Amino acid sequence: MSYKIGLDISGGDYAPEAIIMGAILAKKELKQDIVLIGVRDEIEKQLALHKGSAGEFNIVDAPEKINMGESPVSAVRRKKNSSIVVGMDLLKNKEIDAFVSCGNTGAVAGAATLRLGLIAGVERPGIALLLPSKTGLSLFIDVGANIDCKPMHLFQYGIMASVYYNLVLNKENPNVGLLNIGEEASKGLGVIKDLHKLFSASPLNFVGNVEAKEIFAGKCDCIVCDGFVGNVALKVAEGSVETVARFLMEAMKKGILGKLGLLFLLPNLKKFKRKLDYAEYGGAPLLGVDGVVIIGHGRSNALAVKNAVKVAVRELSRDVTKAINRRVNEICQDSRIRQILTV
Amino acid sequence: MSYKIGLDISGGDYAPEAIIMGAILAKKELKQDIVLIGVRDEIEKQLALHKGSAGEFNIVDAPEKINMGESPVSAVRRKKNSSIVVGMDLLKNKEIDAFVSCGNTGAVAGAATLRLGLIAGVERPGIALLLPSKTGLSLFIDVGANIDCKPMHLFQYGIMASVYYNLVLNKENPNVGLLNIGEEASKGLGVIKDLHKLFSASPLNFVGNVEAKEIFAGKCDCIVCDGFVGNVALKVAEGSVETVARFLMEAMKKGILGKLGLLFLLPNLKKFKRKLDYAEYGGAPLLGVDGVVIIGHGRSNALAVKNAVKVAVRELSRDVTKAINRRVNEICQDSRIRQILTV
Repeated sequence: MSYKIGLDISGGDYAPEAIIMGAILAKKELKQDIVLIGVRDEIEKQLALHKGSAGEFNIVDAPEKINMGESPVSAVRRKKNSSIVVGMDLLKNKEIDAFVSCGNTGAVAGAATLRLGLIAGVERPGIALLLPSKTGLSLFIDVGANIDCKPMHLFQYGIMASVYYNLVLNKENPNVGLLNIGEEASKGLGVIKDLHKLFSASPLNFVGNVEAKEIFAGKCDCIVCDGFVGNVALKVAEGSVETVARFLMEAMKKGILGKLGLLFLLPNLKKFKRKLDYAEYGGAPLLGVDGVVIIGHGRSNALAVKNAVKVAVRELSRDVTKAINRRVNEICQDSRIRQILTV
Repeated sequence: MSYKIGLDISGGDYAPEAIIMGAILAKKELKQDIVLIGVRDEIEKQLALHKGSAGEFNIVDAPEKINMGESPVSAVRRKKNSSIVVGMDLLKNKEIDAFVSCGNTGAVAGAATLRLGLIAGVERPGIALLLPSKTGLSLFIDVGANIDCKPMHLFQYGIMASVYYNLVLNKENPNVGLLNIGEEASKGLGVIKDLHKLFSASPLNFVGNVEAKEIFAGKCDCIVCDGFVGNVALKVAEGSVETVARFLMEAMKKGILGKLGLLFLLPNLKKFKRKLDYAEYGGAPLLGVDGVVIIGHGRSNALAVKNAVKVAVRELSRDVTKAINRRVNEICQDSRIRQILTV
């Protein structure tokens, strides 16, 4: 089946070039309709440069750009003709089936919430990121959409992640853990104590607390935390990998034998960095908004853009949005859950 | 000058052996009076084993042990004869000048707060951890003592860290940054917005927000965050370094040349892990309690224990507790700060 995937040409550190190259790759490999959304001149120039034929793509002109550092809320309000806002409107009007952007994360999440609205029953959107672990992949939610979480938001993150993991990663009854600073149920903030009650009363496969050092251990399929903590965790992971890489390279440069070792280290370090980079997994779905929205890493290259389109297609083909709607309402309207919430 | 340093013999993954070996090292190298606090039989047996003479040390019998996984609050209340509680009482009664423990962090922080009380004017204690950065050392506070922070707590962490950095690391007017998920002042939780006002009105050398990926970049001398976020950040850093190390070792094992490279990689990886490990910096001071308390890493070996004693001696010789008391009250009673707090 073929979908119409809208692609933000103006967002990302290597836009527009890497995005257009990714669109050409995606078109060739995935056989989907790609709608290029951005400054028309730039799109046509890049298509010509990279031997993409303009006839193969739909182009929607969006003359304004939201920059990476811009304040999301005001940018979304002011720049109605930006690729991000135009893309969301196309999605809302069903002129495209999904929207993929490697631009300003806050602006994408904000515009999606404002323009598409949330899935009925969902209280907050969350960015779900696939991370490589020892044993497979962990879905980590939220990594930055919502920094002021109530127990209900985090509870729904668990439900949404579990639906996504089940349908997209094909695993029956994936387990769900709560990021905490200790494994005992009693540890952590009040919010987290309330959450334990909610998860324990739900039909989810809840495994309790996960310590941060376990994120990469593959103990959990889905790991839930608030967007502030999730964003810090993600950035610390990136920062420490860069730090260890720099340290090793400097240390090994010092002797001839070390330099020789470096020859074998460098490609492996690169491979690892790609493994951590969420671009490799094709970007992170913004779960909870009423439509398929994929947020790619700002540093996405053409391959990552193509993979992000692939993630969008997979999410569409499994009808994740509808399944989330059903599951969230089924669980949150259960009398036991409602009772906990009213205490 | 010689101080009396109390050492918890029962706390830590390699206790009592590594702790006793550390005590012998510290005694030899630092020429301080070391008071060994723990199960008398074990202490005497270990001293004999490692050729330490019992006559060189004071021994205080503390027959109970608080385990690493135990719930801190109830353990401190129940086990009055544990090394941690006995050590705090010795410190309170000025029979020792400082207390060093590699045991249950929560129990050490809890017992210190209950038994010693806080420095007058300080509202919450914070664990300050020295981390290696590109350009030197960053002091990261709080990494787990206080997980439910009000703006005043975080503000005082900034003041205390700045006093410590100034006196112990000998830097005039060290700068202070706030861990946040973006560099703009507007980003982040409400708590953090209030904090910006407090820091900006204070005489501290405040540099605004620091993103988590900058923790290792050495942009800031002192980095402030709440204990939940700080603890997650620390554990993620440990976890990602372990993950990259494991990945590199497995990848490089695959070819003969890779194996050769591994010979040079392994010692450097070890070196790096030690660099990250806070045991190397001799443990983390618990700032804000009315006495010098140093929390060593659970995995501390003898060298780390010796270094923890060294950190205690340095903190004592610079009279950090008194300086914190002076500085916190001077700043927090300033009319501009009080005005912000009452709004």
